[in-house]
Amino acid sequence: MMMANDQVRALRWDGEILHVLDQRRLPTEEHWLVATDAAETARVIHDMAVRGAPAIGLAGAYGLVMAARELAGRDAPGWIAGIAETVALLAAARPTAVNLAAALGRLEHIARQGIPGDWRALEQAAGALWAEDLAANVRMGELGAAFLKPGTRVLTHCNTGSLATAGLGTALGVIRTAWMQQRLAGVYATESRPWLQGGRLTSWELNRDGIPVNLIVDSAAAFFMARGEIDWVIVGADRITANGDVANKIGTYALAVAARHHGIRVMVVAPAATIDLGMTRGEDIPIEFRGPEEILRVSGRSAVEPLLTALNPVFDVTPAGLIDVLVTEKGIIERPDAAGLAALMGGPC
Amino acid sequence: MMMANDQVRALRWDGEILHVLDQRRLPTEEHWLVATDAAETARVIHDMAVRGAPAIGLAGAYGLVMAARELAGRDAPGWIAGIAETVALLAAARPTAVNLAAALGRLEHIARQGIPGDWRALEQAAGALWAEDLAANVRMGELGAAFLKPGTRVLTHCNTGSLATAGLGTALGVIRTAWMQQRLAGVYATESRPWLQGGRLTSWELNRDGIPVNLIVDSAAAFFMARGEIDWVIVGADRITANGDVANKIGTYALAVAARHHGIRVMVVAPAATIDLGMTRGEDIPIEFRGPEEILRVSGRSAVEPLLTALNPVFDVTPAGLIDVLVTEKGIIERPDAAGLAALMGGPC
Repeated sequence: MMMANDQVRALRWDGEILHVLDQRRLPTEEHWLVATDAAETARVIHDMAVRGAPAIGLAGAYGLVMAARELAGRDAPGWIAGIAETVALLAAARPTAVNLAAALGRLEHIARQGIPGDWRALEQAAGALWAEDLAANVRMGELGAAFLKPGTRVLTHCNTGSLATAGLGTALGVIRTAWMQQRLAGVYATESRPWLQGGRLTSWELNRDGIPVNLIVDSAAAFFMARGEIDWVIVGADRITANGDVANKIGTYALAVAARHHGIRVMVVAPAATIDLGMTRGEDIPIEFRGPEEILRVSGRSAVEPLLTALNPVFDVTPAGLIDVLVTEKGIIERPDAAGLAALMGGPC
Repeated sequence: MMMANDQVRALRWDGEILHVLDQRRLPTEEHWLVATDAAETARVIHDMAVRGAPAIGLAGAYGLVMAARELAGRDAPGWIAGIAETVALLAAARPTAVNLAAALGRLEHIARQGIPGDWRALEQAAGALWAEDLAANVRMGELGAAFLKPGTRVLTHCNTGSLATAGLGTALGVIRTAWMQQRLAGVYATESRPWLQGGRLTSWELNRDGIPVNLIVDSAAAFFMARGEIDWVIVGADRITANGDVANKIGTYALAVAARHHGIRVMVVAPAATIDLGMTRGEDIPIEFRGPEEILRVSGRSAVEPLLTALNPVFDVTPAGLIDVLVTEKGIIERPDAAGLAALMGGPC
C-alpha cells in the first residue's frame, strides 16, 4: 500500500547488466544508462549518475556481481585476488558514504567464504541488500513519522528518496509516511547546491507522489526558521561514527546549527548500515571535495581563471550534540551518543 | 591611488540619460542598457539590471532627474505633484533597501523647496549623492580594515562592491582596503543564490583588482567556519533599524547565526544613509519576495507545476545582537544598539 505510488527507481538489475537512471538529467529527461562491468559501474557512481548513500552501495554491489561473473573461470587465489581488486576499484569511486564500502565488504566476505567462482551467490547477496534496504526504509518511515504531531512543517535537504535508496527513502521515507498519516502541514525542500538534488530530485519525487513542496534556496532556511514556519529538520546520512557524529550532504551542518539556535529539532534517518563503529568520531571521516567546475559553471565562470578558485566540499559533519533523534530500522535513539549507538548495534537485529 | 584599479561602474550619467551596466549578464557579457525616463529607470531597478542598496538609490535619483526635466514646464502645483508621483513610482520598484526611498526623499525635498522647474538643481543633488557615497566608501574601507589583523581570512556574501555602490563598495570596500594594506590571507565569497551575485559579480570585481577569491556554495560557509578557516564575516546592509537590526541579502542571517556559534565576528558595512531611525526594529522592515521562477529555472523546473512552489524571500533580518561591529562613514559602533545608533546619527557629520 505504502509503495503503491512509489514507482521511482534509481537502478534496475535485469539479471545481466545494471540499468541506471541518469539523475544528472532529471527532471528534464528520464534517461537510463547501462553499466555492463565494474569499471562502468565505478564511473556512473563517480560521475553521480547515481547518488545517495544506500543507492551507491547497491550499485557497487551489482558492479561486483558483474566482475565476479567474469572472474568465475579463475582458480581460488585468482578469484579472491580479482574480487579484492574490484572492491578497491569500486570503493574508490566515492569516499565519504560508508554504505558503498560496507556493501562491497559484505559481498567480498561471501566470495572468500564460498565456492570460488560462484558469482550467483553474490548476485543473491546483492538482491538481499536491496530487499533489506527497502524494508529498513519502510520501518524507519514508521518510526520517524511517529515523532511528528499533526500539523508539522518539515524542512529536508538534498535527496533521500527512492532515487537515493532501494525505494521509499530515508528522510523522505519519513516524510512520505507522515504525509500518508496526515501529519504534515508543509514540506520545505532546500535546492541543495551545487547539484540541486532538492530542486531537481526531491521536488520531482514529491510531485509524483502528490505531495506539495516549497522549494527554497539553501541560505533561506534560517529565515523560515526565524519566522516559526519549520518544526523539524529531517535529513539522511552518509556515515555515522561511533560517537554519533553524522556526515551528510554539504549544508546539513549549517541547518543543524540554525535549528539549534531556534529550538527546532533535528532528525537523522539512516539504515544501520550507515553506522560505522570502526570510526571514532566525525573528524576522521574523509570528506570528498569535488571539482570546482561544479560550482563555477552556473555562474558563467571557468576553472581556468587564475585568481578564482571554487572550493567544493560535498559533505560536512554534524556533531552528535546537534542531533535530537537518530532513526534506524533497528530502533531510534534520542540524543545519540557512543553508548546509545553501541547498545543499538549490539542489540538483536 | 586606492581607486586606480577600480574601473568598474554600475551606472553612468551622461548629462541626458542614464546608462546602466546590465548586471544580469555579467560576467559573460558587459552590456550597457539605457534608461531615458523614470519608468525605464524603475524597470531596470525592479528587474535587477542594477542592484545593491546604494546603487539603486543613485539610479532612482537620476530617474527622478529625468522626470523633473519633463515636468519643468508645469506650474508650481503641477511640478510638485509630478515629482511626488514619480517618487512613488520609483520607490515602489524595490521595497527593502532604504537607500532608494532616502535618495528620492532628498531630491523631492529640494524640488519642493526650490524654484519650480529647476531640474538642474536635482541633477546637482544626484551628483552630490554620488560623490558622498564614494567618499563614504573610502572612509568605511579605512575604518573597517583597521579591525583586521594581518593574516585575516574573510567571508563575504552577495555583492557589495563597485557594482552595488558609487564605487569601491561597502563590505567589499573594506576587503579591498584590507588587501592593499596586506592584512588579508584569504577571501571566501558565497555564490549567493538565487541571483549568484557572489559567483558572478563579487568574484568578477575581485579578479579585476587582482585579489584571489575562493568561491563556495552558500551552505558550505559553516563547514569552513568549523574548520577554523574564517576569521570575519563582512557584509553590507539594505536597511538598518533604530535598534541596530540589519536587513540584507537572504542568507546573511544564517551566516550570522553560524558565525556566533563558532565565535567568529560579524562586521556590517553600510553608509549612514542605510540607517532608518524612523523604523523601530527589524520585524517592521518590508521583506521583498520575488517570483518563484528565479529559483526554479536553474533546476529545470517551472512555476506552473501545481504542487511545486518556490518561496523566494530575497532579504532577511539579522538581529543587532548577532553583529559585532557596524561600520559607517560617521564612525563605527561595536555591539550596535539603539543608544549607539542614536548617538552616531545625532553626532556631527
